[in-house]
Amino acid sequence: MEIYEFGQRIIREAGDFIKLRMKEDFKVDAKLNPHDLVTDVDKETETYIYERILERYPDHRIIGEEGHGTDIEDMSGVLWIVDPIDGTLNFVHQLQNFAVSIGVYVDGEPYCGLILDVMGGVLYHARVGSGAFKDDIRLDEMRDTTLDRSLIGMNANWVIKDQIGPAFKKIVEQTRSTRSYGSAALEMAYVATGILSASVFFRLHPWDYSAGMIIIDEAGGRTTNLLGEEIDILKKDSILTGNKAIHKELTDYFTSDAAFIAGHRRVHGEKR
Amino acid sequence: MEIYEFGQRIIREAGDFIKLRMKEDFKVDAKLNPHDLVTDVDKETETYIYERILERYPDHRIIGEEGHGTDIEDMSGVLWIVDPIDGTLNFVHQLQNFAVSIGVYVDGEPYCGLILDVMGGVLYHARVGSGAFKDDIRLDEMRDTTLDRSLIGMNANWVIKDQIGPAFKKIVEQTRSTRSYGSAALEMAYVATGILSASVFFRLHPWDYSAGMIIIDEAGGRTTNLLGEEIDILKKDSILTGNKAIHKELTDYFTSDAAFIAGHRRVHGEKR
Repeated sequence: MEIYEFGQRIIREAGDFIKLRMKEDFKVDAKLNPHDLVTDVDKETETYIYERILERYPDHRIIGEEGHGTDIEDMSGVLWIVDPIDGTLNFVHQLQNFAVSIGVYVDGEPYCGLILDVMGGVLYHARVGSGAFKDDIRLDEMRDTTLDRSLIGMNANWVIKDQIGPAFKKIVEQTRSTRSYGSAALEMAYVATGILSASVFFRLHPWDYSAGMIIIDEAGGRTTNLLGEEIDILKKDSILTGNKAIHKELTDYFTSDAAFIAGHRRVHGEKR
Repeated sequence: MEIYEFGQRIIREAGDFIKLRMKEDFKVDAKLNPHDLVTDVDKETETYIYERILERYPDHRIIGEEGHGTDIEDMSGVLWIVDPIDGTLNFVHQLQNFAVSIGVYVDGEPYCGLILDVMGGVLYHARVGSGAFKDDIRLDEMRDTTLDRSLIGMNANWVIKDQIGPAFKKIVEQTRSTRSYGSAALEMAYVATGILSASVFFRLHPWDYSAGMIIIDEAGGRTTNLLGEEIDILKKDSILTGNKAIHKELTDYFTSDAAFIAGHRRVHGEKR
């Protein structure tokens, strides 16, 4: 079994683990503070995935949202980037619409991406060069669209910010409509499948976006930061992902807004 | 068979009709303009529902988004309020996440509400006095929440408006997070099931909200316009729907904003 198949197996197992933990805890105490639950399940799931990977591949390295791999500063060897629960507010409030997200890199090159919609039971996945899939269905090549005829993933939260808000506001004005689903990984999966034409995020961590980037790339889309700069996979950054036409339209758009650029540099620094 | 059971049957049939039409048209011409498709399917589905109702109940009256019942100005007798496709942009761009919505009133009193998530195959429904259901599962009584610990349904579109925008902006600041799904009927179903604690809309038509109002009422929630005023079921209005505690918090909030009240009166007029 290859790493890709192994990844598909452990992400499904991780999903089953989360569902079991939800059932157990809600059985034990319906009044349990949901924030304690998410913290516990997040950590336990990451540890579960961590141990399963190292058991099979002792020399692989793992970066996780819940604290594994904080010392990793280079991309040598096989690197797993894991978000045990992406969309924690959905997990807490909705008990659905959250994902496990796993991106795998080999010597700095993307290898495969996996996003599991846990409660929906749907796995979005891609290995570089082999196409992107929703379960067993190969995704069509993403079609080019224009902003004025597209649905865009965006949280209203960015629209209300002082320095960067006006740029997001203009998108709301110009696009057909925005949607907000509350899980970056799932929104990226929705971009790959064409549910959304693009999605914009002002601040994401590697575990939020690494799997989605690989899947979208395989589906024919493009991902950079909001200024059109390539992503450094070990760093947090803004994310702009979509079909190639709208990606260009939106980078042209953000890079022509001096206030936005200044706000972006203030938070994310200057690219080398 | 009662009106309630008959309503459940025809809304399921309408859903099957829409799915069939989508399949046919996409088979015939993959390049078909999706806007022509939605216009056709919207109208045909409304006519389908209209004919089925009148065939069985010749004396009932029907108001539909696509033009039936525009002359109806009173609530006497049995009145069906029908949206054949709620969430038309989702229908066009996503081919999912849209609903058929049917509210039934008898002599001005709410009788039953039905919302079918067509592609999800899920029916949300309630008859007044008999509880609210998601398919065969009875929904729990909605639990009170506070704004700062809730997910709120809201489209970013309202945040950017001049006069009314600041009120929506403050909600974005104060709530835990907002979500936007693009179908008012489905968002109201999500409020009934607790996926969202509340949802706010600045302008909806009777066919968008009538079924949702009845279902939310049966699940223990409350619906008024954003100023806390009762809805006149034959008129368009703003909509604030949620559990009782957050409904009160949000009406207190909107009614303390003079600019918002003025903007609301300008669009929706003064209540008698």
